[in-house]
Amino acid sequence: MFTTGEKPAEQIANKDFDLAVYLKEKQQIVEDALEKSLPIAEPQKIFHAMRYSLLAGGKRLRPILCLASCELIGGNLEIALPTACALEMIHTMSLIHDDLPAMDNDDYRRGKLTNHKVYGENIAILAGDGLLSFAFEHVGVETKNVPAQRVLEVITRLGRTVGATGLVGGQVLDLESEGESDITVESLTAIHTRKTGALLETSVLSGAILAGASSEDINRLSVYSQNIGLAFQIVDDILDITATKEELGKTAGKDLQAEKATYPKLLGIEASKQQAQQMIDKAIDQLSVYGQKAQALRAIAYYVVDRKN
Amino acid sequence: MFTTGEKPAEQIANKDFDLAVYLKEKQQIVEDALEKSLPIAEPQKIFHAMRYSLLAGGKRLRPILCLASCELIGGNLEIALPTACALEMIHTMSLIHDDLPAMDNDDYRRGKLTNHKVYGENIAILAGDGLLSFAFEHVGVETKNVPAQRVLEVITRLGRTVGATGLVGGQVLDLESEGESDITVESLTAIHTRKTGALLETSVLSGAILAGASSEDINRLSVYSQNIGLAFQIVDDILDITATKEELGKTAGKDLQAEKATYPKLLGIEASKQQAQQMIDKAIDQLSVYGQKAQALRAIAYYVVDRKN
Repeated sequence: MFTTGEKPAEQIANKDFDLAVYLKEKQQIVEDALEKSLPIAEPQKIFHAMRYSLLAGGKRLRPILCLASCELIGGNLEIALPTACALEMIHTMSLIHDDLPAMDNDDYRRGKLTNHKVYGENIAILAGDGLLSFAFEHVGVETKNVPAQRVLEVITRLGRTVGATGLVGGQVLDLESEGESDITVESLTAIHTRKTGALLETSVLSGAILAGASSEDINRLSVYSQNIGLAFQIVDDILDITATKEELGKTAGKDLQAEKATYPKLLGIEASKQQAQQMIDKAIDQLSVYGQKAQALRAIAYYVVDRKN
Repeated sequence: MFTTGEKPAEQIANKDFDLAVYLKEKQQIVEDALEKSLPIAEPQKIFHAMRYSLLAGGKRLRPILCLASCELIGGNLEIALPTACALEMIHTMSLIHDDLPAMDNDDYRRGKLTNHKVYGENIAILAGDGLLSFAFEHVGVETKNVPAQRVLEVITRLGRTVGATGLVGGQVLDLESEGESDITVESLTAIHTRKTGALLETSVLSGAILAGASSEDINRLSVYSQNIGLAFQIVDDILDITATKEELGKTAGKDLQAEKATYPKLLGIEASKQQAQQMIDKAIDQLSVYGQKAQALRAIAYYVVDRKN
């Protein structure tokens, strides 16, 4: 599932670093933590619905970015794991609500029926609400050995990331842009900065904050994450055209069908690929000061453009 | 709008205390704070939708309980005001989502068209999500001069209160109970403890926590708020039968129409009134240790059973 693509190994700075192994190991840690985070209680139906989407697999890119940036700054995994899980809860919540009939009306996600196709619209709305609120509770209850002020800063950033200037705002702009014929690259970027970039940025920054990052670290990691966030979305748009449903685990060609503005539609596939690559280069530039300690974040940046799904 | 009903003034412990004046004053403080909390930004549509429901009036009972309990423990209003606003954001979010076509499908709320009737289902779902996440951000950013650990405890409680064991879980049980003919008083109480009681309890406790309440204070205020929470819901059920749409600001007789289990349906109106009164008496018992300092919480308890809407 994960490859480092065609990049020559020396670009990843350390020939011994195997991203596929790294991602697999971190993914397993995240899966185990997510599994434990939400035991079934009463009323069981809503817990089943929340777990159905939360434990449906996926790349777990956001939690892994959080763990990697925490380690970069010198923190141990344990202090960031609750936040890593919360990021995935928030991401899952946004997918459940985006897939609703009143929104993008999608039937498949991560290779499975969407939440509302299995549990009904009402439960799907509530499962999203439940995951969102649980994310904050989970960070507050489970984060140990970190000054309360840092935990509070992470929670505040999580709140802002979901809100009207983040995921929610991005989805509003996205809904408004559908069927519009004169979307510019700028307005498309405004959508994706909110819909994808904001949560990826918060994923990277929250891990760093928990580990005690300086303001210089935060600035560098902001530029890193904003660039990989946009590159990630550009690649998503490209994959929607070039990949199959089996590769994606969700309906392919959905953007074309919905007449959605995408980077390949506005710029062409080749220019889109180039732009994504330029962003990745910019992201990686920010990591030079960290040397080999940043090998995971560096390799993840390459992976973002080279992934197949 | 607010009266102390038929209770003799001496029961309110201080003849000089005018609850109507108190509520009006606090309500104005909350309205002003809510108005300022959410200035319109881009994308404007979602901010308009969020403000439409957040600023639609209402009793502001939850924020007022938070402010009153903060003052009871000796804190000033300012430290609790952001949390008071967050409680109303969360309450508003739960109303917006409960009113959706996929849920209770209601057209009127607080005397105005429901959010989705004005902005559409997709924006209404997102407005709820935006208010929920903003509630956490707002507490994190705006709470000043309180140890971070207390703020964190409040945020954690807010998260738990919304989640699958709180508001969300209550709504799931409520949806499941519709049309069922064999609902017991116990299962009805389980619904309302989650749907109404949990947030009223968190309203009272969060103000107290911010002000530095002891565990004895927390225990007493838990019993107080659990009892007024259930009494509040019993009175709501009674008002749905006895009040008019104009008095309620929402569709009256809705529970009967939807064949929902209610306390008056299970116990009769008179027995329901008696039960609400008993709960209020229990609630007020808990306040005796505070003497006159608790006059606001005491008067609010009486008001819960005597209100007309």
